[in-house]
Amino acid sequence: MSKDITEYNFPQDLKTMSLKEMELLSYSIRDFLIEHVAKTGGHLASNLGVVELTIALHKVFNTPQDKIIWDVGHQAYVHKILTGRAGRFDGLRQLDGLSGFPKCGESEYDCFDTGHSSVSISAAAGMAAARDLKGEKNEVIAVIGDGSLTGGEAYEGLNNIGDSKSKVIVILNDNGMSISPNTGGIAKHLGSLRTSKGYLGLKKFVKKHLKAGSGLGDTLADIKNDIKYSIMDYGGVLFEELGFTYFGPVDGHNIRDLIDVMVKAKQLNEPVVIHTITQKGRGYLNAEKDPGRFHGVGPFDTTTGASLEKKTGSTFSELMGDFALELAEKDESIVAVTAAMGEATGLGNFARTFPQRFFDVGIAEQHAVTFAAGLAREGMKPLVAIYSSFLQRSYDQLMIDVCMQKLPIVFAIDRAGCVGADGETHNGMFDLAYLSSMPGMTVLTPKDGNQLREMMAYAFSLKAPVAIRYPRGSADFDNNIMSTYCGQNPRVLQQGTVDIWACGRMFDCGRQIAGLLNREGIKAGLVDVTCVKPLDISAFDFKLKETRLIVACEDHSLIGGLGQQLTCALTPAKKSFLCFGWPDEFIPQGTFAQLADRYGLTAEKITERICRELERKA
Amino acid sequence: MSKDITEYNFPQDLKTMSLKEMELLSYSIRDFLIEHVAKTGGHLASNLGVVELTIALHKVFNTPQDKIIWDVGHQAYVHKILTGRAGRFDGLRQLDGLSGFPKCGESEYDCFDTGHSSVSISAAAGMAAARDLKGEKNEVIAVIGDGSLTGGEAYEGLNNIGDSKSKVIVILNDNGMSISPNTGGIAKHLGSLRTSKGYLGLKKFVKKHLKAGSGLGDTLADIKNDIKYSIMDYGGVLFEELGFTYFGPVDGHNIRDLIDVMVKAKQLNEPVVIHTITQKGRGYLNAEKDPGRFHGVGPFDTTTGASLEKKTGSTFSELMGDFALELAEKDESIVAVTAAMGEATGLGNFARTFPQRFFDVGIAEQHAVTFAAGLAREGMKPLVAIYSSFLQRSYDQLMIDVCMQKLPIVFAIDRAGCVGADGETHNGMFDLAYLSSMPGMTVLTPKDGNQLREMMAYAFSLKAPVAIRYPRGSADFDNNIMSTYCGQNPRVLQQGTVDIWACGRMFDCGRQIAGLLNREGIKAGLVDVTCVKPLDISAFDFKLKETRLIVACEDHSLIGGLGQQLTCALTPAKKSFLCFGWPDEFIPQGTFAQLADRYGLTAEKITERICRELERKA
Repeated sequence: MSKDITEYNFPQDLKTMSLKEMELLSYSIRDFLIEHVAKTGGHLASNLGVVELTIALHKVFNTPQDKIIWDVGHQAYVHKILTGRAGRFDGLRQLDGLSGFPKCGESEYDCFDTGHSSVSISAAAGMAAARDLKGEKNEVIAVIGDGSLTGGEAYEGLNNIGDSKSKVIVILNDNGMSISPNTGGIAKHLGSLRTSKGYLGLKKFVKKHLKAGSGLGDTLADIKNDIKYSIMDYGGVLFEELGFTYFGPVDGHNIRDLIDVMVKAKQLNEPVVIHTITQKGRGYLNAEKDPGRFHGVGPFDTTTGASLEKKTGSTFSELMGDFALELAEKDESIVAVTAAMGEATGLGNFARTFPQRFFDVGIAEQHAVTFAAGLAREGMKPLVAIYSSFLQRSYDQLMIDVCMQKLPIVFAIDRAGCVGADGETHNGMFDLAYLSSMPGMTVLTPKDGNQLREMMAYAFSLKAPVAIRYPRGSADFDNNIMSTYCGQNPRVLQQGTVDIWACGRMFDCGRQIAGLLNREGIKAGLVDVTCVKPLDISAFDFKLKETRLIVACEDHSLIGGLGQQLTCALTPAKKSFLCFGWPDEFIPQGTFAQLADRYGLTAEKITERICRELERKA
Repeated sequence: MSKDITEYNFPQDLKTMSLKEMELLSYSIRDFLIEHVAKTGGHLASNLGVVELTIALHKVFNTPQDKIIWDVGHQAYVHKILTGRAGRFDGLRQLDGLSGFPKCGESEYDCFDTGHSSVSISAAAGMAAARDLKGEKNEVIAVIGDGSLTGGEAYEGLNNIGDSKSKVIVILNDNGMSISPNTGGIAKHLGSLRTSKGYLGLKKFVKKHLKAGSGLGDTLADIKNDIKYSIMDYGGVLFEELGFTYFGPVDGHNIRDLIDVMVKAKQLNEPVVIHTITQKGRGYLNAEKDPGRFHGVGPFDTTTGASLEKKTGSTFSELMGDFALELAEKDESIVAVTAAMGEATGLGNFARTFPQRFFDVGIAEQHAVTFAAGLAREGMKPLVAIYSSFLQRSYDQLMIDVCMQKLPIVFAIDRAGCVGADGETHNGMFDLAYLSSMPGMTVLTPKDGNQLREMMAYAFSLKAPVAIRYPRGSADFDNNIMSTYCGQNPRVLQQGTVDIWACGRMFDCGRQIAGLLNREGIKAGLVDVTCVKPLDISAFDFKLKETRLIVACEDHSLIGGLGQQLTCALTPAKKSFLCFGWPDEFIPQGTFAQLADRYGLTAEKITERICRELERKA
């Protein structure tokens, strides 16, 4: 098959392909994926695992009339290839390029924007309900990984579909992993299913047969057979009891079997679960050996699999993990909780050193936070490490289970602010807003590794909830201005006619701005806002006399962030304010530098804006 | 048994009671509950349903060493009676009185503050993990209703405990209802269990027997028996597959059976589910007949069950339901979604008129919002009606599934602001903050029924997400100032040297303040802020010239609410600001009038504060 992937007219061309051609196509797609993701970075392993599954889906179903909802959506690359977007893979996850997730705005073949886990079944339920109300006949298919199935909303969705009996096909893409290997009763349950090797259809028949209690064969052998199938069928019963017809397990790399079972599912007029077994990283040895690393990967050498990214110092994640371990060695009441992101948040060493004190609860952020509240209630000091945009899912638990009970829990909030290539769904630009409105929550924003270390020690010393939010990437120690963190007061480094208040990643930008202003002959002040909540400005009232303009800089949405809190706190001083942060919209994918430039958040652009403001006032 | 409930020394006195004495006690407790809740109001039906269950718990377990976590917690009255708090029931749910929910601050017998659904299993998991780390031996028991089991976090908790094998006893209090009758696959599953009448212990033995595949009896009769038990055991298999040992169903009103099964559960060293069948409202005929109305009830006549509350006009909930129905009659694409609060949010008539277009998804707020997003994606116009404090659980879904996708969904947010007797966990004082930070969300705040009607029509006309938040209680039409709502601009009713900007429930207070100020000879302005986000002040810049002081009034936390948004928007005008709202803490139970007085939010107190500020500035 010498035809280039980009030359096909997918999905139409798939309709006429033979099984053999589709099998050959799967090789071409894998080569294409490896070649492109090696350049752009992306979610490789998950996509290698769903090549045959996606081919079968587009063979059997008629998109865009039939709707395919990709849970999380990082596994939708093959779907993008098969719906006319192969030619855009050079720009995958780049500024203005192809998204790494489904986007309705990108293609009519994407029917629901995803990015966060465990919502696909609920979205499918809604789309199926709309279809039924409109009297239409299209299929609605949710493709969900076993990892996403540990999230409670997936269960809420199954529970509701099972009740409504609305026709939805749930395809369980079971590779035994989320980002980390899965945990939980459901994982064990699926594990036992994977080894059961049951026969499609027959099992269901036998079960119904047994339940009805009639037609039991009269010979011992018949009945023993019946019992055997009855026991084998136990697995599917979890789904069956929720109201689904269960098919599986099916080899997720066997196109023929996949097509067969999908055709069967299409014929039924009831909710169906198809349980497919896939291998993460399938067909690329480096990824098969280390699917965790190739879950989300930067540019790499296709032969060796080695990363082509330059290592620029330790990341905040790595340092957080190191510091947590240091603290835990001295205090055995410190325990760590994460939601399927142990390695990614830097807790790998912690987990290996203190396996009994490390809890990966799977993709279950709500549980993670309440679980930590239970630990704290009984005297433990939990550290909860979750990405900013995923911690959103625990808003209610943070508010009621943690803050209302004033429980001493330290939240290590990774990937706060702009995250880069993952884009809209993964940006952590709202955490200062939602955390600041929670009574009793302290919110700290380290600008470098030094501050992170001091803040973590401080956080564990407080008898109250503390959130420490820091960005993705390097946490280079700042040697120019040693951080001398002391509690919750902002550090006033210098004062001027223009005072720059900056926090976290934007502190360095603030320092550059001060330098640029000074060069222009404008006396610039600089304040390192280490603690956004409570924002203590009491000591600064008297110092504002020579200040003409107060400037806030933050890697956060303008609404509810540092700038607004500062404006409200300092408003009695009747100064002028300029706030710099992300506008009230969803910020797309791109590097931080690219986006900062586009949205006017570089030191140069902010300085220019300040100078204009001063001229306007003069 | 003539001894008064308050004269016992519980739980100690329970330890020496005979079965007969406990049965008599259950009658006394019911009388006590009915008598007291008839005066104070409260969650009667749920508590009548757990009298025997709670007696058995305190008989078998040694609190406070053993920990009992009450899911939601509105069913903990009997627990309060049995832990020394019977004497405080006159103050139940009153200002500074006994809480209607468990509060660690109230008693050492309360070990985890609850109020929101489905968290008890996760909290228990955390407390059990802490116990195991500390090498202690106490029991941890989560008592959860079948309604709460429809919430995803409950499943996350089960999934994690099943995996850890940590000893937790989950008591499933199955009464077939949440506030409304339950829906969902799990409800049907429990329903089939309820009728299975299995025998404790035996079933489990038989299942293990079968699974091991050895020792199968050789006669046909034996095997048929085995099959029968195998099939009966199907029910518990849902819990068993998640890693729990399942006992049940048990008659939840039979103290002897309850004690037996709890003693058995105590002996095991693994996670256990005890499935008890209870009757909501048990023992009080009025409540047995209408458990929905007696779920949360105001003062009532104990003989007739009739409400003793004066009806003061229509509530916002009732009007919302009426208006939704009106709109739905004209537009068949309008559908309604709620999370186990159909009647309570006023959607009862909608559900009866358009059963196909009404979706009660159970206590599953996350699913509710994503489900609505799916409906909207396929052309429906969903109305999602959820209380403010419960909608918090959908923060992530509101952000990613709705706002990021700009889907046209109308959120009817009931019980916004101060809710009164339910207190901390049910107050809706954070919604303006979390909704305002969501890009693309419009947030409307009707002050009366007229505005609500106009806003609902307007909201459905927008092609974007809209939240309409309104308080619990009366929505008396405001005839003095007819609302002439027109889009998103604040209505400037008058201007003065002091301009009062008020929204929602506080608008009337704002008008009173203006009147009081005018009487003092201070020219007061009044602005009806109908739309908190986007907060459009562009038309008002020029009008501020004679304004000395801008005052914001809202029934919301000061952080992130109207006052802060207004301060930031108007800060270039360099005016003085005074913001009135709830302080940055959890506001306790009490009537709105009591709490407004305590927190300085009455018209008189605000006026006084304004006058002081004007004097200070003069």
